[in-house]
Amino acid sequence: MKITRITDKKVSLRRTIDTGTEEQRKIVQDIITTVRDKGDEALYSYTKTFDKVELEDLLVTEAEFTEAYNELEAEMVTIIQEAAGNIRAFHEKQKRETWISYDENGTMLGQKITALDAVGVYVPGGTAAYPSSVLMNVIPAQVAGVKRIVITSPPTSKGTLPAGVLVAAKELGITEIYKVGGAQAIAALAYGTESIAAVDKIMGPGNIFVALAKREVFGIVDIDMIAGPSEIVVLSDHTARPNEIAADLLSQAEHDKNSSSILVTTSMQQAEAVKREVEKQVATLPRHEIARASIEAYGHIYVADDLDTAIAVVNELAPEHLEVLTDNPLASLHEIKHAGAIFLGRYSSEPVGDYFAGPNHVLPTNGTARFSSPLNVDDFTKKSSIISYSEKAFFKNYKKVAKLARLEGLEAHARAMEERLK
Amino acid sequence: MKITRITDKKVSLRRTIDTGTEEQRKIVQDIITTVRDKGDEALYSYTKTFDKVELEDLLVTEAEFTEAYNELEAEMVTIIQEAAGNIRAFHEKQKRETWISYDENGTMLGQKITALDAVGVYVPGGTAAYPSSVLMNVIPAQVAGVKRIVITSPPTSKGTLPAGVLVAAKELGITEIYKVGGAQAIAALAYGTESIAAVDKIMGPGNIFVALAKREVFGIVDIDMIAGPSEIVVLSDHTARPNEIAADLLSQAEHDKNSSSILVTTSMQQAEAVKREVEKQVATLPRHEIARASIEAYGHIYVADDLDTAIAVVNELAPEHLEVLTDNPLASLHEIKHAGAIFLGRYSSEPVGDYFAGPNHVLPTNGTARFSSPLNVDDFTKKSSIISYSEKAFFKNYKKVAKLARLEGLEAHARAMEERLK
Repeated sequence: MKITRITDKKVSLRRTIDTGTEEQRKIVQDIITTVRDKGDEALYSYTKTFDKVELEDLLVTEAEFTEAYNELEAEMVTIIQEAAGNIRAFHEKQKRETWISYDENGTMLGQKITALDAVGVYVPGGTAAYPSSVLMNVIPAQVAGVKRIVITSPPTSKGTLPAGVLVAAKELGITEIYKVGGAQAIAALAYGTESIAAVDKIMGPGNIFVALAKREVFGIVDIDMIAGPSEIVVLSDHTARPNEIAADLLSQAEHDKNSSSILVTTSMQQAEAVKREVEKQVATLPRHEIARASIEAYGHIYVADDLDTAIAVVNELAPEHLEVLTDNPLASLHEIKHAGAIFLGRYSSEPVGDYFAGPNHVLPTNGTARFSSPLNVDDFTKKSSIISYSEKAFFKNYKKVAKLARLEGLEAHARAMEERLK
Repeated sequence: MKITRITDKKVSLRRTIDTGTEEQRKIVQDIITTVRDKGDEALYSYTKTFDKVELEDLLVTEAEFTEAYNELEAEMVTIIQEAAGNIRAFHEKQKRETWISYDENGTMLGQKITALDAVGVYVPGGTAAYPSSVLMNVIPAQVAGVKRIVITSPPTSKGTLPAGVLVAAKELGITEIYKVGGAQAIAALAYGTESIAAVDKIMGPGNIFVALAKREVFGIVDIDMIAGPSEIVVLSDHTARPNEIAADLLSQAEHDKNSSSILVTTSMQQAEAVKREVEKQVATLPRHEIARASIEAYGHIYVADDLDTAIAVVNELAPEHLEVLTDNPLASLHEIKHAGAIFLGRYSSEPVGDYFAGPNHVLPTNGTARFSSPLNVDDFTKKSSIISYSEKAFFKNYKKVAKLARLEGLEAHARAMEERLK
């Protein structure tokens, strides 16, 4: 890992977002149009082409759920249940209520909170088909009160889905799961087909084709963020243990060659120790090739003169995951402005949050924590303003409203007010 | 206006979103690249080309503010101040606090709320340069605690901005206003130039070039919704007055030829009376050409057999503005699921909300109220999760976390936990 002594605070992990090649965009547009026009027929056909499997039905069957439970050990089901309980408890605290306020004229103003009717969760295929993603995307929707939650995921060559994904879904009571992936799944969720009714919002990560399809249907339906490469930043002083820092950096690095693992520390001695530990530990990992490539390309250690400078660097980076491994982590909390999730102290190693503690693991990546939030219950609800103007308030104010309307050249607005006088 | 008796509830105002022509997309991409590469030089050059004016400075000067105040009558300033006060009071109620919860193990989980650092508000030029847009976009950002709020707007041929816009901004204490519009303004806000520092989020409506530019920079910065054509739906029974309904429908129709004005009523007699009133009133409007074109293309009256059916139709339409002009508007509130703003009763004519009452007039259009919200304080803040796992909680749960990690094939995640045992 490269070690750099920080002099100015201008660092950034913001990298270009992959918006695809012209060819990829074209392919995605074609797939969307075809699914829109031909419905299910197109879905079966694309699944045969891309997933190399001919399906008879897109919907996961009861027999497939049973098989998934047989495949998974019983203890794992219990752990999934416990994780789900923790995630649900945390997200319950995010719920918001409709409010109305009155004034002395009898006018009522308020904000009504309503759950979305239907959402679709995309679960990527292959090694990235994570049961934890099912929990993290579905539970906030359930807490919000969404009635219909659909999962789509590309089938394996055997025409089924990973046991962990099916069990996690079933444990949450979700059984509307379709074996379809890629841009064709996104198109089906946005426009609907004979067997898949359209939803209002599409969640979940995916490859470049899925990401481009989400961008393309944005506006017809809502989408969550388009995830970029993932990252961890560890903020530490001399009190943190180099072996633990190294292990946490590597837990990010093993995800993907494009992941970033960054240490910002006030101790040069520690920086050097972490560098050595990373080299030692990476060699023994099963996914050492990925982890090593990630560390070489995007791993970095910044050494700051003091904690204030280090925190300023962290705010510049605006990391997805931030671990604070300093003598007094809580004391720094109010100075941290930009981070998706903040892990305080040595027992809050990132995997605790990835799987189990309760907060969501779907987090803003690539520096977007400057303006984006972890996935949360608000993402599955929307607001309506309530305006009930009283007769008294109307007569007190209608002339002012008419005047403002005429300032903007909107005469019919002014007359709508005056029509009430007749 | 066309009158249709409702038989099934399948109606929709969702129209295709204008995503621009290939040529328009190309122009916008070129503008963005040029501004990114050449900075201010490109801004001055595009302003000369598109706005037909050679500027010496992009920033609005103190003299221009003074001139704007001279132009506007004093009473108007007072009304703007009062409207601003109402808008501020409403949005103050939307503010949310950081929270932390503790469990018996000493684990702390929470959600930290932080304001964005910097946002840019785009104010369109020409007749659409509305002081009310300044109030509606800036005040929620101020309530959220955003430190830097920037306005950009295309200059008139005289090289200045409309007095109403400048006064509204100045009344809010906003003086960082740049005379630049179009895709070049969006590019400057997203990437920064010598004189305009980049922001984190871009708000505000604009023409197709502005909309395409916002889509293009989405991800580098956040954007608000991309506004489509605007609409009003009036839900009424026989108790509402046809002249008032007609006036309210026309206040929407005068905005734009693409606006929709729709009545959903339980009374055929009323439907016919409203149709006659619209024809009568439209003839006397200064913007009668726009209003008539809008009514002819997108005006519609639906007659339902009963109020339940009428409300179902309203939920299908998911209108931007919904007026409830029934005998007991409040009684229907809980059944209305999808609407941007809900105006209850005859004294809550839409312009009351457009200008003065307090709730935001930036609302989800084109059926997107199914999944989107009025502009609000949350749009100017973001959340960070807080995870402080206690030693006790760690030792109770680390094996489960490691097991979940290994189920997903992520060995380094499991080892990050186990490294804590050393």
